[in-house]
Amino acid sequence: MSNAATRVTGQDHIWSVSEHLEDILTTVRPLEPIELHLLDAQGCVLVEDVTVPVSLPPFDNSSMDGYAVRVADVSGASEEFPAVLTVVGDVAAGQAAQPAVGPGQAARIMTGAPLPPGAEAVVPVEWTDGGLGAGPVSGMRAHSAAPEAAYGRVHVYRPAEARAHVRAKGSDVKAGERALEAGTVLGPPQIALLAAIGRGTVRVRPRPRVVVLSTGSELVQPGEELEDGQIYDSNSFALTAAARDAGAMAYRVGAVADDADTLRATIEDQLIRADLIVTTGGVSVGAYDVVKEALSYVGDEDEAGSGIEFRKLAMQPGKPQGFGSIGPDHTPLLALPGNPVSSYVSFELFVRPAIRALMGLADVHRPTTRAVLEAGKALSSPAAKRQFLRGRYDAGTGTVTPVGGAGSHLIAALAHADALIVIPEDTTSVEPGTEVEVVLLG
Amino acid sequence: MSNAATRVTGQDHIWSVSEHLEDILTTVRPLEPIELHLLDAQGCVLVEDVTVPVSLPPFDNSSMDGYAVRVADVSGASEEFPAVLTVVGDVAAGQAAQPAVGPGQAARIMTGAPLPPGAEAVVPVEWTDGGLGAGPVSGMRAHSAAPEAAYGRVHVYRPAEARAHVRAKGSDVKAGERALEAGTVLGPPQIALLAAIGRGTVRVRPRPRVVVLSTGSELVQPGEELEDGQIYDSNSFALTAAARDAGAMAYRVGAVADDADTLRATIEDQLIRADLIVTTGGVSVGAYDVVKEALSYVGDEDEAGSGIEFRKLAMQPGKPQGFGSIGPDHTPLLALPGNPVSSYVSFELFVRPAIRALMGLADVHRPTTRAVLEAGKALSSPAAKRQFLRGRYDAGTGTVTPVGGAGSHLIAALAHADALIVIPEDTTSVEPGTEVEVVLLG
Repeated sequence: MSNAATRVTGQDHIWSVSEHLEDILTTVRPLEPIELHLLDAQGCVLVEDVTVPVSLPPFDNSSMDGYAVRVADVSGASEEFPAVLTVVGDVAAGQAAQPAVGPGQAARIMTGAPLPPGAEAVVPVEWTDGGLGAGPVSGMRAHSAAPEAAYGRVHVYRPAEARAHVRAKGSDVKAGERALEAGTVLGPPQIALLAAIGRGTVRVRPRPRVVVLSTGSELVQPGEELEDGQIYDSNSFALTAAARDAGAMAYRVGAVADDADTLRATIEDQLIRADLIVTTGGVSVGAYDVVKEALSYVGDEDEAGSGIEFRKLAMQPGKPQGFGSIGPDHTPLLALPGNPVSSYVSFELFVRPAIRALMGLADVHRPTTRAVLEAGKALSSPAAKRQFLRGRYDAGTGTVTPVGGAGSHLIAALAHADALIVIPEDTTSVEPGTEVEVVLLG
Repeated sequence: MSNAATRVTGQDHIWSVSEHLEDILTTVRPLEPIELHLLDAQGCVLVEDVTVPVSLPPFDNSSMDGYAVRVADVSGASEEFPAVLTVVGDVAAGQAAQPAVGPGQAARIMTGAPLPPGAEAVVPVEWTDGGLGAGPVSGMRAHSAAPEAAYGRVHVYRPAEARAHVRAKGSDVKAGERALEAGTVLGPPQIALLAAIGRGTVRVRPRPRVVVLSTGSELVQPGEELEDGQIYDSNSFALTAAARDAGAMAYRVGAVADDADTLRATIEDQLIRADLIVTTGGVSVGAYDVVKEALSYVGDEDEAGSGIEFRKLAMQPGKPQGFGSIGPDHTPLLALPGNPVSSYVSFELFVRPAIRALMGLADVHRPTTRAVLEAGKALSSPAAKRQFLRGRYDAGTGTVTPVGGAGSHLIAALAHADALIVIPEDTTSVEPGTEVEVVLLG
């Protein structure tokens, strides 16, 4: 380690935000697909084209509660001159055997039940006397209370055309059609369709398992007592929550003290359950920046492109960043700065896209828009750095208002922001009324 | 039950969508708050105003890796005439004892570490020789590799004003200030702030536990073989997924056969873990509509306003609906129609707002917008019914295009829709080019 100072001073290239992001997105590959039960696949990306194995509905069935009839038998029926038919039984949904409907006959049929043999149409129960002989009814009597209503006679007061109130087999989707394309994100309606065509499992990219750990000997778990020089660990909580929001299964390891051996052992332990590791703190130029110190040993130095590289970015906040891969599976690792606002902004810009790339999502970025800056005075921004200020966006007026100042430690302001105001590298001052780019944190 | 037909025919009032929704939202009360750990409270509504117990940062600290100095000692320092100071030790973050900085002295200090006694400002390490005596450096040597660098001499090449690179105690938030107001939804930045001020737990309304069960003797679990007259159960999957999306903890019970005793026993079993019960199927006018049949026994008929009421709504799809409360805790229950598209649309219109009302959210509704109808021909809609058609919304052009037809069984179309097109009760035809209301399914 006698060359430690040399190594640090040698890294003089300043990365732009775009370069760093591009490096991450060209390195992080989508996770290998696995077969998951439908409800476990919610929010995941389908990797197969799903074909309909059986037509929906799988058989001609009734769209109403009513009577299955032959068209000729109800031709010309009216309230004055009803058709009077013999009821040969019930056809309920899910009932195996169905009575055949011959001339002069009807079967009482329920919504979704198969059209019985011989029947050509369904007349809704509201067009009949329901077997009671006292004019039109608005519903059937429950079978459990009046089993005799499955038989007897029914008066039908209106005619019906062939196929009236019948849903034809295959009228929704036909066997062999494509139900869903590879790349579809599985939300509730897609899960509905997959279940409806009988798919109990589907092949998807799983949710990434993201391990979040913060570093810093000054960090204390919230709820405990602070001693002199200590602060509460907020990063491991914030980034675990943010990783979940991005779609990951997140594991919070919590704060690790500034000791390289402990940190290295902790990370090596966590590799077994990590598709992505996120650390905060210890990435700058200080003498106790142990993430930097520890991770130069964890990388697979024999493998091209592996190992963690620490960089300076042309951005504020979030200048020091580490990125690379570690361990036998080349698990990607993002090392974020320790300041809570810096780490949160870094998460939004770099970790969230990485998580969504692991999921195989086509669109990995937060939506952005343009908004008019509403502020009491001009905003200043350092030259040659892309600055991200916290703001509140008003979609109604198309304006954005800064919340708190530029200081990277204003975590209270962050909690009241819903957008990041982006000030480009070549801009050092933005007047109120200027149109600016805004990242919507949603 | 001899009056079953009478009871059904007696319910002649047709409810509007708005009346039914209003009845639900005036009945369903927010859940009682509980104290949850921060990460368990993600997405929940805070019910207390949270005050800052200790100022942030809790002590003056360094915003840079560098040297803590006295201003007079570095006054006029330059590369040609550096100030040469004796380094009295390191101040790392989280280190309990700090060396005092006397005249002519400096302490090597890390970002976040407390400003030591006697020091007035911090000079960044880049403005010094880092103790190496060879001009400006870009970082410190790791303490583990070069412990001697905590002592010795440092050349400082620039002056510093009082408080330079010092974050003042309380400059982010001050003790006694309000951090978050009751009613705030806890996302990652709010969790960050709560952790930072030391809150390990917070008082929130919990996520509602929603039990979803579908009914129908024709229903088969996806993945199994269909026999004649059977279809796959999709509702219990779709609504469980949709309930989760709405913020609930959802339990899928699956399909229950059309038998009133079995259904009643199943629902009574589930009451113990339900804040809300959602059923599908069995709510219409058929002779085997067991939800209707079973739930007239489960209600607390002694209690005003309890019990389940079955209604006809002026809407398509989704005409038959049940709503009320059951069991000793008056657990709200929504009984939706069994057709997959009807049940999904009913979920969006009625169950989702109920879940969000249980969570105590101020805004329980999906966002709506106006869009220009893009279609090959006019859309027809039944008179005196509010119709909900599936559509795809294009925010860029402000247009919406119907997907599939009006038939309530078009589950394939639903899986390709991202919006519902609303056609009001008094409209029976909508020409292409007309502006329509659109519910964004997000």
